[in-house]
Amino acid sequence: MMVGMTNPLLRDQDLDFLLYDVLDVLSLTRFPYFSGHDRELFELVLTSARRLAREVLFPVYKAMNESPPRFVDGRILVHPAMKALYPELNALGMQSATRPEEVGGQQLPLTISTVASAYLMAANLSAYGYIGLASGAAHLLETFASESLRQTYMKPIYEGRWLGTMALTEPQAGSSLADVATLATPCADGSYRLVGSKIFISAGDHDLTENIVHMTLARISGAPAGIKGVSLFCVPKRRSENGQLVDNDVTVTGMIHKIGWKGLPSLALSFGDRGDCHGFLVGEPHRGLSYMFQMMNEARIMVGVNGVATASVAYHESLEYARNRPQGRPVSAKDPSQKQVPIIAHSDVRRMLIRQKAIVDGGLALVARTALFADIAHHSQDAAEREHAGLLLELLTPVAKSFPAERGFESNALALQIHGGYGYSSEYLPESWLRDQKLNSLHEGTTGIQGLDLLGRKVVAAGGAALRALRQEIDSACAQARSCGVDERWPQALSSAMSEVEGLTLELASKGLGGNVEEMLLHSSDYLELFGILVVAWMHLCLSAAATKKTAGSSDEEAFLRGKILTAEYWLATELPRLHMLAALCRSGEDSYARIRSEEL
Amino acid sequence: MMVGMTNPLLRDQDLDFLLYDVLDVLSLTRFPYFSGHDRELFELVLTSARRLAREVLFPVYKAMNESPPRFVDGRILVHPAMKALYPELNALGMQSATRPEEVGGQQLPLTISTVASAYLMAANLSAYGYIGLASGAAHLLETFASESLRQTYMKPIYEGRWLGTMALTEPQAGSSLADVATLATPCADGSYRLVGSKIFISAGDHDLTENIVHMTLARISGAPAGIKGVSLFCVPKRRSENGQLVDNDVTVTGMIHKIGWKGLPSLALSFGDRGDCHGFLVGEPHRGLSYMFQMMNEARIMVGVNGVATASVAYHESLEYARNRPQGRPVSAKDPSQKQVPIIAHSDVRRMLIRQKAIVDGGLALVARTALFADIAHHSQDAAEREHAGLLLELLTPVAKSFPAERGFESNALALQIHGGYGYSSEYLPESWLRDQKLNSLHEGTTGIQGLDLLGRKVVAAGGAALRALRQEIDSACAQARSCGVDERWPQALSSAMSEVEGLTLELASKGLGGNVEEMLLHSSDYLELFGILVVAWMHLCLSAAATKKTAGSSDEEAFLRGKILTAEYWLATELPRLHMLAALCRSGEDSYARIRSEEL
Repeated sequence: MMVGMTNPLLRDQDLDFLLYDVLDVLSLTRFPYFSGHDRELFELVLTSARRLAREVLFPVYKAMNESPPRFVDGRILVHPAMKALYPELNALGMQSATRPEEVGGQQLPLTISTVASAYLMAANLSAYGYIGLASGAAHLLETFASESLRQTYMKPIYEGRWLGTMALTEPQAGSSLADVATLATPCADGSYRLVGSKIFISAGDHDLTENIVHMTLARISGAPAGIKGVSLFCVPKRRSENGQLVDNDVTVTGMIHKIGWKGLPSLALSFGDRGDCHGFLVGEPHRGLSYMFQMMNEARIMVGVNGVATASVAYHESLEYARNRPQGRPVSAKDPSQKQVPIIAHSDVRRMLIRQKAIVDGGLALVARTALFADIAHHSQDAAEREHAGLLLELLTPVAKSFPAERGFESNALALQIHGGYGYSSEYLPESWLRDQKLNSLHEGTTGIQGLDLLGRKVVAAGGAALRALRQEIDSACAQARSCGVDERWPQALSSAMSEVEGLTLELASKGLGGNVEEMLLHSSDYLELFGILVVAWMHLCLSAAATKKTAGSSDEEAFLRGKILTAEYWLATELPRLHMLAALCRSGEDSYARIRSEEL
Repeated sequence: MMVGMTNPLLRDQDLDFLLYDVLDVLSLTRFPYFSGHDRELFELVLTSARRLAREVLFPVYKAMNESPPRFVDGRILVHPAMKALYPELNALGMQSATRPEEVGGQQLPLTISTVASAYLMAANLSAYGYIGLASGAAHLLETFASESLRQTYMKPIYEGRWLGTMALTEPQAGSSLADVATLATPCADGSYRLVGSKIFISAGDHDLTENIVHMTLARISGAPAGIKGVSLFCVPKRRSENGQLVDNDVTVTGMIHKIGWKGLPSLALSFGDRGDCHGFLVGEPHRGLSYMFQMMNEARIMVGVNGVATASVAYHESLEYARNRPQGRPVSAKDPSQKQVPIIAHSDVRRMLIRQKAIVDGGLALVARTALFADIAHHSQDAAEREHAGLLLELLTPVAKSFPAERGFESNALALQIHGGYGYSSEYLPESWLRDQKLNSLHEGTTGIQGLDLLGRKVVAAGGAALRALRQEIDSACAQARSCGVDERWPQALSSAMSEVEGLTLELASKGLGGNVEEMLLHSSDYLELFGILVVAWMHLCLSAAATKKTAGSSDEEAFLRGKILTAEYWLATELPRLHMLAALCRSGEDSYARIRSEEL
């Protein structure tokens, strides 16, 4: 079998159904910001992304994977295939797709750019990574920087001439941004001189563009300790002086040998080795982390899309393999004189497939719906609608980030498992996607940090307002499902799962209010997991309702819709009981790992 | 931090406690076969294995990992470090350690050789792989071959002069050994000429020894279809003719690019390209699979040990990292002017550590106890005792094989996660162990096959005799725990989990007896998972009881014992509820993946 040749990355039918039948994405065009759009324009974007993903990005994934960028004479040289595809990728204009027309953007809904980017990520995570990072950097400048900085450093990124990065992490301060130590000393000209070291900077150097803009966290000399003393700087690789680009004293000090995302270099950078690294303050001093966090939702949703895309491409690969690989015979008909059956005929193989499908379909619906809430929160003209969507955006972000990372890793492992011994070989792609996926539980806040964010902040903020907003959504999904004729067991089960989460949250929050924050947060990882089960069950109920409602126009479509209904049933029946079990565990007071001491481990 | 320099691989204290306090391995010396042994001799074996593992095998693991064997001019050349260490590894005598003195063995209990091999595997899976495979090949010859074959081909392996392999898998017949197609044509001299292709043959060629003996499944011309026509042959790389070794027409046709176990080549072999491949029938015609399966328990326990060992070395690496890596501050005391704390101070990190410890401790106890049942089943003089142990050996084997593979993979992923961004780099070892671990769910029968074996054969054989034997063991463990003063909740919880499994098994078996085998086996993977939870809970109750009973001689030992008790509590409290949830799922009739059709996926 030719590897990967027929892999659709994501199935167009899934996306169409999700966007138009489930999410009603066209309703966004009622907002002035999106009023220039219609389905035809959305389709144009998606078609271009699909074509590029399938015809250009995916065919070079394996080659880029096998030959990572090289670190030569202080510079990073990317794979020739990356250099070759970059102009086409750049021409898609994903950097500024969602941005306003006045900065050169297309005012596209985040929902649409999210699903379009999913194709690009499924094809070649690393290739798209350059664009995704640059987009985030430019968006920070657009939102918080002075007009002059925007003209000089944002514009070339949105125009596709330069790229950019996020330079947050330092060797001594990985997840703990409060401990950032890069020092910024003010100068007479209003700029700063930076000195410090950063690590794990993706796309921190390359030979794709003439300049790279590093959005950098640093501490102005004399600033208070902790997060309240961290500022945001624009630190270009080459700064603009009198219309010329001159070297800005940013040095590559090392390349990390990452185990996945092989096409995207992860670097250690040093700022100011010669004392000549100019940084330009973005916004006000000491507010760097709060600016970063305003961009964090989008960045975290994008990590979620990485996760879903990586699970999706592997799912489709294993589905094709299972349909074509003959092996063994049914447990009830083992006559060896008969031909072997394709392994998809074995129900345990179908279990591994439906589980992947449930994770991919549910995860995709989750990231797309979270993006939809972002579109509504940012562009609705109705304040109440904006607030409602904003609450849900905040609430769902840690789940949209971590569910695809964690369950996607499980899903990728199943895709490998279906390939049997061949799955253990690097001739086949599933092992590579498994490695790619592992990053998603680590970057942009580890899974543990997402759990603390969800339970410690999101569900308790504003007296639980976000959880009440979720209850509204789930009630309305249940009503919708009932009216479509979905089996009553499922809205019933979802609703009672929501009640379980409400009760549990109240119980845990009251521990925190009583001053016992450690105990409140003890099971934050279990809480994150059960919350993920809940919201993905909600997604599956919506998918099932839309599928039940829809009239099939062909036998292909009938199979497609029945697949949605059965997959939803699988998730609701197998995962909601786990939610209740985890909730009981959070309540149980089980605290062995709180009590165990370092020397007892 | 120096990577891996202080890693103990496994902790000696854990092993001593397991062997002498929990399993009472010395009681085996009451059997004549083991009567020449005592604790001092066991310790001699363990000390030699530990020393070799720590001082010789582990220091070259990374180097062997980075430069796999090379395929040059039709031959496989291993890493120079492997050639250098081989004589020392060979000198340990693990090939024949458990075998009788009359074949040159040491009559060591399998329990002792199992834990000794765990050190070697934790240090360097690939290096030990050569020995483990050879041992299995020789053991097959010892048990089933003629005296002349034993003299010619078994003896040199047990003497450490040659190595051996298992040549089962063929490209068109991976897990389906009924479809083996390698053809054996009888010749006048009583031997056979073999023609066929094998794939995934570990250590199928190398330059470590002058000869390699392939224990090969093939079909004698005219044999019936299916497993009843498969015979076992001894097929040397070089055959003995008139006291000379001559080439036996076994060709290396390709090397698989495995993603782990990098030091051990996995090969495609071709037999009889020139029509001159002599095979020697082992035992009777057409009984090859039944012979293989008599060796399968041991091979599968060894896969379990691989899994535990790989989880163990990664656990210790992440424990050391967590104790030394400063990052962040407690959730209840975030003063940034205070120093960062080591990440082990964060309870979510301790959760990831205790979970690994529970999997490693529980898995190690499981494989060691399964080996103990093998020792009793093979060497007790009491028929009833042999039968009881034999039933448990059969029952526990699929669990001892799959639990470490599946939960070990989870454990290895947690070790990587604890390392944060560094865990995603190949400069650190956790990612490498994660790749190594993945093989264990695939070779020697995939996890899916273990589930079918457990539910379709083991628990229902002889009217459920094995399950009754397990009930006896669990009752006795509960009584022991109570008498030691273990909290009454835990024996209570274990006993009711056992009742749950008994009831569920009866229910599923009656479906099978009623003719509905497909439905009986539908949830075989869930059943395997819940059964694993049960037996590992039993292991933890035994560990907890022994720890509660023991008087600590020092504060170190007190911490050690308290760690055992808390880890057991963690497993029982968090995993037994999952067992009940999975049992309910098996009973529920949830059959979405049975109903979903290929075109609906």
